[in-house]
Amino acid sequence: MSESTYPSVKDLTLEEKASLTSGGDAWHLQGVESKGIPGYMITDGPHGLRKSLASSAGETDLDDSVPATCFPPAAGLSSSWNPELIHKVGEAMAEECIQEKVAVILGPGVNIKRNPLGGRCFEYWSEDPYLAGHEAIGIVEGVQSKGVGTSLKHFAANNQESDRLRVDARISPRALREIYFPAFEHIVKKAQPWTIMCSYNRINGVHSAQNHWLLTDVLRDEWGFEGIVMSDWGADHDRGASLNAGLNLEMPPSYTDDQIVYAVRDGRITPAQLDRMAQGMIDLVNKTRAAMSIDNYRFDVDAHDEVAHQAAIESIVMLKNDDAILPLNAGPVANPSAMPQKIAVIGEFARTPRYQGGGSSHITPTKMTSFLDTLAERGIKADFAPGFTLDLEPADPALESEAVETAKNADVVLMFLGLPEAAESEGFDRDTLDMPAKQITLLEQVAAANQNVVVVLSNGSVITVAPWAKNAKGILESWLLGQSGGPALADVIFGQVSPSGKLAQSIPLDINDDPSMTNWPGEEGHVDYGEGVFVGYRYYDTYGKAVDCPFGYGLSYATFEITGVAVAKTGANTATVNATVTNTSDVDAAETVQVYVAPGKADVARPKHELKGFTKVFLKSGESKTVTIDLDERAFAYWSEKYNDWHVESGEYAIEVGTSSRDIAETVTVALEGDGKTQPLTEWSTYGEWEADPFGAKIVAAVAAAGEAGELPKLPDNAMMRMFLNSMPINSLPTLLGEGGKKIAQFMVDEYAKLSK
Amino acid sequence: MSESTYPSVKDLTLEEKASLTSGGDAWHLQGVESKGIPGYMITDGPHGLRKSLASSAGETDLDDSVPATCFPPAAGLSSSWNPELIHKVGEAMAEECIQEKVAVILGPGVNIKRNPLGGRCFEYWSEDPYLAGHEAIGIVEGVQSKGVGTSLKHFAANNQESDRLRVDARISPRALREIYFPAFEHIVKKAQPWTIMCSYNRINGVHSAQNHWLLTDVLRDEWGFEGIVMSDWGADHDRGASLNAGLNLEMPPSYTDDQIVYAVRDGRITPAQLDRMAQGMIDLVNKTRAAMSIDNYRFDVDAHDEVAHQAAIESIVMLKNDDAILPLNAGPVANPSAMPQKIAVIGEFARTPRYQGGGSSHITPTKMTSFLDTLAERGIKADFAPGFTLDLEPADPALESEAVETAKNADVVLMFLGLPEAAESEGFDRDTLDMPAKQITLLEQVAAANQNVVVVLSNGSVITVAPWAKNAKGILESWLLGQSGGPALADVIFGQVSPSGKLAQSIPLDINDDPSMTNWPGEEGHVDYGEGVFVGYRYYDTYGKAVDCPFGYGLSYATFEITGVAVAKTGANTATVNATVTNTSDVDAAETVQVYVAPGKADVARPKHELKGFTKVFLKSGESKTVTIDLDERAFAYWSEKYNDWHVESGEYAIEVGTSSRDIAETVTVALEGDGKTQPLTEWSTYGEWEADPFGAKIVAAVAAAGEAGELPKLPDNAMMRMFLNSMPINSLPTLLGEGGKKIAQFMVDEYAKLSK
Repeated sequence: MSESTYPSVKDLTLEEKASLTSGGDAWHLQGVESKGIPGYMITDGPHGLRKSLASSAGETDLDDSVPATCFPPAAGLSSSWNPELIHKVGEAMAEECIQEKVAVILGPGVNIKRNPLGGRCFEYWSEDPYLAGHEAIGIVEGVQSKGVGTSLKHFAANNQESDRLRVDARISPRALREIYFPAFEHIVKKAQPWTIMCSYNRINGVHSAQNHWLLTDVLRDEWGFEGIVMSDWGADHDRGASLNAGLNLEMPPSYTDDQIVYAVRDGRITPAQLDRMAQGMIDLVNKTRAAMSIDNYRFDVDAHDEVAHQAAIESIVMLKNDDAILPLNAGPVANPSAMPQKIAVIGEFARTPRYQGGGSSHITPTKMTSFLDTLAERGIKADFAPGFTLDLEPADPALESEAVETAKNADVVLMFLGLPEAAESEGFDRDTLDMPAKQITLLEQVAAANQNVVVVLSNGSVITVAPWAKNAKGILESWLLGQSGGPALADVIFGQVSPSGKLAQSIPLDINDDPSMTNWPGEEGHVDYGEGVFVGYRYYDTYGKAVDCPFGYGLSYATFEITGVAVAKTGANTATVNATVTNTSDVDAAETVQVYVAPGKADVARPKHELKGFTKVFLKSGESKTVTIDLDERAFAYWSEKYNDWHVESGEYAIEVGTSSRDIAETVTVALEGDGKTQPLTEWSTYGEWEADPFGAKIVAAVAAAGEAGELPKLPDNAMMRMFLNSMPINSLPTLLGEGGKKIAQFMVDEYAKLSK
Repeated sequence: MSESTYPSVKDLTLEEKASLTSGGDAWHLQGVESKGIPGYMITDGPHGLRKSLASSAGETDLDDSVPATCFPPAAGLSSSWNPELIHKVGEAMAEECIQEKVAVILGPGVNIKRNPLGGRCFEYWSEDPYLAGHEAIGIVEGVQSKGVGTSLKHFAANNQESDRLRVDARISPRALREIYFPAFEHIVKKAQPWTIMCSYNRINGVHSAQNHWLLTDVLRDEWGFEGIVMSDWGADHDRGASLNAGLNLEMPPSYTDDQIVYAVRDGRITPAQLDRMAQGMIDLVNKTRAAMSIDNYRFDVDAHDEVAHQAAIESIVMLKNDDAILPLNAGPVANPSAMPQKIAVIGEFARTPRYQGGGSSHITPTKMTSFLDTLAERGIKADFAPGFTLDLEPADPALESEAVETAKNADVVLMFLGLPEAAESEGFDRDTLDMPAKQITLLEQVAAANQNVVVVLSNGSVITVAPWAKNAKGILESWLLGQSGGPALADVIFGQVSPSGKLAQSIPLDINDDPSMTNWPGEEGHVDYGEGVFVGYRYYDTYGKAVDCPFGYGLSYATFEITGVAVAKTGANTATVNATVTNTSDVDAAETVQVYVAPGKADVARPKHELKGFTKVFLKSGESKTVTIDLDERAFAYWSEKYNDWHVESGEYAIEVGTSSRDIAETVTVALEGDGKTQPLTEWSTYGEWEADPFGAKIVAAVAAAGEAGELPKLPDNAMMRMFLNSMPINSLPTLLGEGGKKIAQFMVDEYAKLSK
């Protein structure tokens, strides 16, 4: 960035500084005209620009925006496990922002998919914070590399739509630190997003906009965040309190700037705090100045469509491929040497694709090519029957029988099924993981007429597959693929490219298997995160629960082998992992090598294993590559409430290398020294804890010796009494030993004071 | 009770009052000799008197106590579903206390079996608070009917042994009120236990002994408790703070009485509070005076043994009885008309019974009759092989082959399996639900040699049955049966009496199915009760999870039919249930009619159904009886954090009558008016909540009319915007509508103020 050409807060009046901390209207910053500070536009769109055409007087219309490339939403992109690809999406989005003079694009949203019913799962990344952080950072770095800002959202714990404006998310410190914060933390530390958007909800009693611990202590003081925090639209309920907590910008404006002026005058806000918050806004404007000064920029619509196309290809996850039913043989176009198959395409989604989710991310695409359009463009013949309507109405028998007849006459049936738009959106949570019953019924009818069925799914959030999977030889989970989903699907289905997507979230057998269900979506204004850190595969894998498809899973047309896993320590508590991955098939394709860390014996209940590294590798037929993945100290740590800090215990850790959380190719163990954190012994430490401590053990030995010598009472020696003793804080010794117990406890505390000096 | 002959606190000095609030030694109250207040003995024993023979200088020796009748511990008794029987046990225990000059017997313990691994599950009653309260009250009423005190324990939330002296149990208000308090609440309100023992642990940050909310606000002010609270042994860590919180008695003494005197003098304790606490102690002594004045009392050892025998019979739960393998035909003694069977008895438990648990409840029985002893006494022939040793050592091949040979030569095999004493005790939690592997291996070997195997289980806490059940045609879960388990088992096995026990807790298929496992047993000094109210069958039944044996389950030699279920309302929110139960077999036996209430649509997540009434009915062959069970308002209520009170919603409730939580014979629906509780509307109420409120709906209509008339802005009318609107607190309307939203919200609040006047 060049030096600022705008004034610092020192050059502004109190009123001007106050005005900077609120939007000018629903989609603009508030500039200070007299001082030459512009009021840039900021607008929605994690998977493409949503620049509203409506007036900016405060009304919101989600269906009316300028055309922009519609990339696959995060549910799709996250299945790519390809940060470089995601980076390209970010660059493209930035170029569209530059054309449209948008200074900040509001995304990505990296909230954790705590429960797959969450209404906004389609625009979040994963049930795993490492994956979410290491993928979504591509958007932030890609956009910002072009001089446009991002807004990492919704900070924090906006993991449901139900009562999201009020709900108090009651979450343990450990779950916050290990599950709900790390995606934010990683991106803040590595990419410094220019803005962060706070969430609507409360966390442990405090609205995020007013949460000083969240916005200042953790975000700025611990993580070193240098950007500004804005409110989600309407999340600020007390502008003065929020400004004190560390909120730079209220969006949209609803309180008058005078309230801030008065608050400074009567001491409720210090001048220094207002200066900090206002200077952040000036800094933001300075960062975006260069890009916003580019005039008459026109992005390359076709090139961006091609980015969307590539992103869509990598978003597709093949869940099943019995009898190698895929890829299809489409005839001369796809495979000139083979005989063409007679193809039936069934399902309205093939003609009328669902390619994005509802709510603030809903955009107007620059192009739209359905799967049927693509077939026509490519000269691939297929019979089509819609089979059902894209609504929640009952089945239409006429459409059904037409579909069955169409299926009967084909060699293979491509069935496009999924969730209609009304089934999922920002604003409400789903109440079932199941596809609409009429689609399942149709699938059963079609499968009865034709055994060769491939189901192609369109859905933003996870749906159950197990109830109907027996009716399909092949299943492609294609999520929402953005505007270029049709060509991407055709590429995969006809074998121009192998599917390479991997699930960023588990597909459960039943929503009631999810450990958050006993607290979903909360009640009476609160939601208890009772499952703690055991979210998604951390629960399923730790407690040995069956799932339909595990986290990280996805099939390929190729086969791969992972060999030669080696782990080398690079420090007391760090290591590097090497592994060789070989494409053992005659098909070029990509595989994703996943590294999970599985702690050994631990002082706290830890997940069986956690994703701590991954690399997607493109390999030609027969090709081998060696991948290297570094594991930093955090890869082994848990958040200790005792230390109020991360803690790495000494001991053995298994490093698992594989292709899903349940397909581990090789496991190698590494011994770490630990970070050496200890707690001082006190009268509240148990006798067993004294024995386990190096100093304490000496004192325990001295107590035994003094007992033998008759200087202190003897401790009981039968097994049950020793068991009681070991779990007893020494301040409870009098319960077991009367007055003598008091003497022993005092002796121990006194000796410890001497030893620790 | 006769009038007090002891002084009131008014007659005591400050020092004397202080001295009353601590024990005299480990097992005695501290009297005031000069004022004629005796220091009565109080001692352990929820299932029988444990009067230690050790010195009273403070040492604790759990293995050395005067002989007393050993009744089945609560794990057994609770399976009786027979409060009258339990009352008789209480009466008998009181008589033994009178003989031994014990004024208060420390029990019953009504903590909830939150997780079946809990080390003390054998002396707790149930996973269900209604059942726990309505059974354990029999002990309290039985003991106190003889003028001896009980100590209801451990108040509250002592649901695990791990770190029990320190652990902070973090529990939602709703789970405390609906799950962890009701057994205490019921017994306090209906039976006024003379004492309550507080738990060691903390609840939401505060040690129970120092928890004013727990000991005073809830226990005394809400529930009307009139007795005294004592500390569990060593649970008091700050005598002054505890006394202020409502703890009358520190046990055993560890702080000097001077500390209390000084605290009163310097104002940290008010004289009134000390008077209240000390007067409680005088009142307690007065209550026990009559019984403690009885000299040379001798209880009837044989009569009490017979009570223990009857209690043991009703504690036995028959889990499986394929091919009607039970009852056995023992020959002329048991059934003179039948041919005798050749019986093999295998398993050391048949010779060396496990009949009670370890820890503070461990007593010295007056008699001990093993199953083998009983066979000998009754002249029933059987071959015996111990098969294994009662320890955690590996299998002994010699014992195994002897057992298999013994099995081969028999018509039927009785295999006595279970948990050795070392596997469960106060002081530690278990880490598996499985029986020792060597016993399962032996069972498999025996079953291979003889198809007719009946397993008889001895275990204080639930063990998994599913892994080995296929090897047994019959399974009797006999828990720990006290000193008369041998005769009781013989009665049931040979058909003198039908088993009638019903499970007071679910038997899961796998411990990892338990919803508390993600938070068990906690870490770093705390345990989160993340499953909330979904404990035991409340979880399994609500979320449709398979269990091995459901709550309330138990087989009989007889068959029963429940018919004619009728529910009549007895008030706006109360009802009475009638049902006819018929013994449709030719065997006399008892059945337990269970009433579950299943709420309809509710504002909070409620369990699918909850036990709210039960009656055990003894029926001769062919006999019918009509039972009546009243449902009070509480039977339909949930604890609302919003109202900080119980709340009955209006609407339909299904009343299920059956013989287990998963064997419901008939269901009848009743419509309740609800308790009419409402909350005032505010700017924080959502538009949807305004619409749902009678006043609010009028105002919403006025807003629409004003919109039509152009007096207020119009609200958006597309479906998605309406959905957003409905979930939006009206103070967020400006986000959607700008300045106009502010006007609407103000209008609504103003109109509501007028209407509510």
